[in-house]
Amino acid sequence: MVPARISLVTLGSRDIQVMRNFYRALGWEESTLSSEGFAMFKTSGGVLALFLLDLLAADANAMPTRAAGAFKGVTLAINVERREQVDEAIAAARAAGARIVKDPEDASWGGRSAYFGDPEDNLWEVAWLPDASFDERGGMIVP
Amino acid sequence: MVPARISLVTLGSRDIQVMRNFYRALGWEESTLSSEGFAMFKTSGGVLALFLLDLLAADANAMPTRAAGAFKGVTLAINVERREQVDEAIAAARAAGARIVKDPEDASWGGRSAYFGDPEDNLWEVAWLPDASFDERGGMIVP
Repeated sequence: MVPARISLVTLGSRDIQVMRNFYRALGWEESTLSSEGFAMFKTSGGVLALFLLDLLAADANAMPTRAAGAFKGVTLAINVERREQVDEAIAAARAAGARIVKDPEDASWGGRSAYFGDPEDNLWEVAWLPDASFDERGGMIVP
Repeated sequence: MVPARISLVTLGSRDIQVMRNFYRALGWEESTLSSEGFAMFKTSGGVLALFLLDLLAADANAMPTRAAGAFKGVTLAINVERREQVDEAIAAARAAGARIVKDPEDASWGGRSAYFGDPEDNLWEVAWLPDASFDERGGMIVP
């Protein structure tokens, strides 16, 4: 079972600061987890995240170009409560016909992460963060 | 004020049925509002929607090509409770420096819709649907 979640929408960005300033200008509330290189804005649904296009592509084992079938500059994330759910979700995704773009691996930031692509190469990250918490509906709670 | 919401994530798709089958295979629950040409899956955050790439591009006044700065095949939506909030949100977005891609207009499906682009041409639809309802956190409730 792959949890049906949209926990973050990450926009690969050429200039984080320009993008951050725009969303601040919309009146959106930034998470206290936001950093210089990775901006997070709270929304009623998932978190809107901004990350450098090239770094996002590298993290997803993707090419930052925009040729047909190549990386689009957007990834979608499914965040889970337990470390082993990353592997379980990737196994289930593989069974459903997903292309596994990045096998589950421990991440430098202390969690666990993997990526799969759907039939048209939209990339989904499955991620576990040690300190994340969730509401009763599976929404990730960020400070 | 532009409501901070991610109500839907729409993936411009070349083959709706192939995509629909994949997400069904993940075990995701399809909304009863889903139709042949527009699939909607419930998630803990926003709704995941599948729509033909060319039709999605046309609806957003965008080109379906993947050249740099062109349409990426993904749009993000902010759904609001009242018709006039579409216009209010677009006015606020314009004030924040957004490029207004499509001015608010009554849609053939009975609601009201507009699009703005962020500084890197990520496209946001602001939409009002007459029959939509929302939870206390601003999440759109679909049957």
